[in-house]
Amino acid sequence: MPTLRLALAQVNPTVGDLAGNAAVVRRSARAAADAGAHLVAFPELALTGYPVEDLVFRASFVKASRHALRALAGDLAADGLGELPVVVGYLDSDGPPSFSAEAQPDRGPRNALAVLHGGRVAATYFKHHLPNYGVFDEDRYFAPGDTLTVVRLGGVDVALTICEDLWQAGGPFAVARRAGVGLVVSINASPYELNKDDVRLPLVRRRAAEANAAIAYVNMVGGQDELVFEGDSMIVSADGTLLTRGPQFVEHLLVHDVELPAADPDRPAADPGEETAPDGMRVVRVPITETAPGPAGPAAVGGTVEPVDQEAEVWRALTLGLRDYVDKNRFPSVILGLSGGIDSALVAALAVDALGPDRVVAVAMPSQHSSEHSKSDAADLAKRTGLDFRTEPIQPMVDTFLANMSLSGVAVENLQARVRGVILMALSNQEGHLVLTTGNKTELAVGYSTLYGDSVGGFNPIKDVWKSLVWKLARWRNEDAARRGETPPIPENSISKPPSAELSPGQLDTDTLPDYTVLDQILVGYVDGDSGREDLIAAGHDPEVVDRVLRMVDTAEYKRRQSAPGTKISIKAFGRDRRLPITNRWREHGV
Amino acid sequence: MPTLRLALAQVNPTVGDLAGNAAVVRRSARAAADAGAHLVAFPELALTGYPVEDLVFRASFVKASRHALRALAGDLAADGLGELPVVVGYLDSDGPPSFSAEAQPDRGPRNALAVLHGGRVAATYFKHHLPNYGVFDEDRYFAPGDTLTVVRLGGVDVALTICEDLWQAGGPFAVARRAGVGLVVSINASPYELNKDDVRLPLVRRRAAEANAAIAYVNMVGGQDELVFEGDSMIVSADGTLLTRGPQFVEHLLVHDVELPAADPDRPAADPGEETAPDGMRVVRVPITETAPGPAGPAAVGGTVEPVDQEAEVWRALTLGLRDYVDKNRFPSVILGLSGGIDSALVAALAVDALGPDRVVAVAMPSQHSSEHSKSDAADLAKRTGLDFRTEPIQPMVDTFLANMSLSGVAVENLQARVRGVILMALSNQEGHLVLTTGNKTELAVGYSTLYGDSVGGFNPIKDVWKSLVWKLARWRNEDAARRGETPPIPENSISKPPSAELSPGQLDTDTLPDYTVLDQILVGYVDGDSGREDLIAAGHDPEVVDRVLRMVDTAEYKRRQSAPGTKISIKAFGRDRRLPITNRWREHGV
Repeated sequence: MPTLRLALAQVNPTVGDLAGNAAVVRRSARAAADAGAHLVAFPELALTGYPVEDLVFRASFVKASRHALRALAGDLAADGLGELPVVVGYLDSDGPPSFSAEAQPDRGPRNALAVLHGGRVAATYFKHHLPNYGVFDEDRYFAPGDTLTVVRLGGVDVALTICEDLWQAGGPFAVARRAGVGLVVSINASPYELNKDDVRLPLVRRRAAEANAAIAYVNMVGGQDELVFEGDSMIVSADGTLLTRGPQFVEHLLVHDVELPAADPDRPAADPGEETAPDGMRVVRVPITETAPGPAGPAAVGGTVEPVDQEAEVWRALTLGLRDYVDKNRFPSVILGLSGGIDSALVAALAVDALGPDRVVAVAMPSQHSSEHSKSDAADLAKRTGLDFRTEPIQPMVDTFLANMSLSGVAVENLQARVRGVILMALSNQEGHLVLTTGNKTELAVGYSTLYGDSVGGFNPIKDVWKSLVWKLARWRNEDAARRGETPPIPENSISKPPSAELSPGQLDTDTLPDYTVLDQILVGYVDGDSGREDLIAAGHDPEVVDRVLRMVDTAEYKRRQSAPGTKISIKAFGRDRRLPITNRWREHGV
Repeated sequence: MPTLRLALAQVNPTVGDLAGNAAVVRRSARAAADAGAHLVAFPELALTGYPVEDLVFRASFVKASRHALRALAGDLAADGLGELPVVVGYLDSDGPPSFSAEAQPDRGPRNALAVLHGGRVAATYFKHHLPNYGVFDEDRYFAPGDTLTVVRLGGVDVALTICEDLWQAGGPFAVARRAGVGLVVSINASPYELNKDDVRLPLVRRRAAEANAAIAYVNMVGGQDELVFEGDSMIVSADGTLLTRGPQFVEHLLVHDVELPAADPDRPAADPGEETAPDGMRVVRVPITETAPGPAGPAAVGGTVEPVDQEAEVWRALTLGLRDYVDKNRFPSVILGLSGGIDSALVAALAVDALGPDRVVAVAMPSQHSSEHSKSDAADLAKRTGLDFRTEPIQPMVDTFLANMSLSGVAVENLQARVRGVILMALSNQEGHLVLTTGNKTELAVGYSTLYGDSVGGFNPIKDVWKSLVWKLARWRNEDAARRGETPPIPENSISKPPSAELSPGQLDTDTLPDYTVLDQILVGYVDGDSGREDLIAAGHDPEVVDRVLRMVDTAEYKRRQSAPGTKISIKAFGRDRRLPITNRWREHGV
């Protein structure tokens, strides 16, 4: 059996940056060649970044992607890497989009993959299964491919697949079995979700069994607006053994030797289009290198990274999502309001971990309702983390509004939050910082925030983090610091005190909201799980509380529609993942 | 040949209001029966409203829709309307959604239609073609139906179809021809777009030819978040003759007698499932009433409404979209800032037309940079329209911010806009008005607005109106008033003066932006048409101007992501219609 040295390049491309992404591919291909790899694979749409959304409809962009692919093939050869087969995702098209008057069946933009070899595009494959649920809209963009590409590489037949192909039974992996391949390469841009890594390995194993072949799975790394990609690349043998597994949330080149069955000598290396298979897919065979490689010196062993705690995993997801939003959009620094409460404290700690204290500005904006501990807790966090800390009292501005307008009740509460929003935006305009907003998922769900007030900001690092998890993350981060002998960044008092918006005298969150433990359970059911009122009551919740919570969620849709993006970490994040009408009279309790 | 009296009920349902929508159906069915109709048809998803978006995934909502349908069948019979066949759209399901672990091929939620007759659900049909482009996400939601339902009704074979089925050749209409039907009923929720009515009639004619049958086309009316439905229901004979056409933008019951071929006596009225056809569709036949109706007294003639001017049409679309957003969300009134400029003047006039002057509050918020004409033009509009007019000078608040913070340049300009935003939101919180924001599509495209300043608001009536069209609409509205001997609502000076944000001394829009005529042409190409830089230059635009405009559009994506919803009137509106990444380094000019 030939042994192939496979290199999986879990890289961090940037959407739209064709030149930059091509440079990333060239660098990693060089590293793979230096490691003696016989094949290097890059993630889905690595050349364009993922997802490119409606850029698919820009003919100029499609053309640029195709051009960049050909240029990359030439540049790799010029770099002396022409002999290394490079698998890379790119955007292709063989027809106008489906909504066009000129649309043709089975043609259109393609979520594509190419094998670059010998200075040219040696083979291509078009993604067959297109995800169109959750955050995915691929039926909007792509025509599905109906041909499985099998390349003969180092004497082994290798099938090529893209992301969602892996998640469905009976598709390309079943065809790959019929085609008798020894290896399936799966290139991915699979967004992070809590516990998804626990799903991924069993899934890869099931597909390995279905294809009766080893699987080389490479996934993207990095943040893109609401998504963060975690890497977690791996190789699994045909019998389901995990051979090697890369780390999460960092760029990594995973290089590992895999013994693979030699191609059946009775099957030709090239036989375009003669085989058909279930699901209507054809098989196209393309020879790249027909003979098995000789011995490559000492064995390459990729190793296996052990999974980390849930809190550690989320922390890394959130810091990567934040850092990439800031850096890919070229912001020098971030600014946020620091109230002394747990949400802004957590975001400050995340920002410092993501960007370093020199790129984080925190502003305390006390009012007459601010407690002494709020001011001291904010200052304490600043001291612990070393971020740039300032104080801008809001009372003079609030008083001027109140002297010129006749306001009372909630209008006065919201006014204070909005004056703070104006201050943060003024500092952003003056000094160039990106404003971070700090509302957690619970707050967004029930609308417990002031639109254009505390919701002001270009990015929300904890948008998809339930309040219960906010506390857990804060405790974990402090304990982790203690374990490493470092200063815990978050003041204990910010974690332990009862939460308050401090917009009126003695105000507490619990004046308006149920206990957060109960609230989060109801919200997880209603928001993440699409449970109805009866399901929630059957699960043991008080009907009156359920009705109150559901009403709050339903009527806050307009606020969420104008909310800043933030990193998705749950099965259903607010944003593209959950699309509800604002105008909506459906009420679970029937009123 | 039997003559059937067809009633097309272009009604205005509300998303989620199952009880209210059922009541609408009962009222219109009564009116249809009173008019002697043999069939009344309601729009797509009339029972649930359209689009219900992710409510599809709420099992409790699907269950409620199915329950409401059965209850409606019974209530119609109890109303003495059991003999009138009622075609109505509703949400059904015969399996979990496609992303579920329990998903089954060819099963799932259904965009469905029922024929209610004799107190029960006599027949159903599931939409076959699912639109998944533009604002539509129906592949996300629905499993496509693969069976064409043909009912025998008054001795005529009638095929039933839903919306997108009409827009694609070779689907249910081709099957209907093979099934030998005399009439195809097409129920729709087809959102308004400029000039779409010009497309619709030729489309219906093409399908009539394809089916070799008359088509009864009924479309929804009303606003739903970013969409407005226009009605424009019609009946076209098999030979393409337009028999009757209803009005746009109002509820209407279109009743018309149509002579239709009797069902082929050799074809049974009931033969479930035995016929298959191209596209894999089966045909199911259901008898409702087998004998042709007797003479029904004087002929019913629906008449034909003539199309109106483009400006009149847009005006009606915008007022309906605004009124329904306000009323369906139960706001008592709206509030907006009135600057004396054309955008806010137009929105004020639209709001007064939509809601009446008693429900519109306009606030002048002059600063030290406000010109005399701004103040007098705003007051003039108030006098012309009779709306509630107030003045809240912003200088005291602006001065307090400036005294407490060190700001300059754009930060000071934006501060003024944000103080205005705070004032409007404070009045909204205090008095319960919905805040209208007044940025036109050109402004949104290039980001010429202050986030959380003039962009503050829950709804933007002119979000999809290019600046050039803003002026045209204002002139049209004034001329229309003059034609009717009424006071033109918009001060001439607001239309004719050069636009200015008035945030710094002597500031004009043209300091920052190209001439609006040129700008709008470039934007229509880039935004609506997905043209690239080279296309725009080939169309005769100055490369330097093109580059400047494209850069502005690209970098304003983050502002648009947080913008208020507004009525779609163009082929591509900002919002769900155009989905672009914020983090996006693709630049047409290659930097």
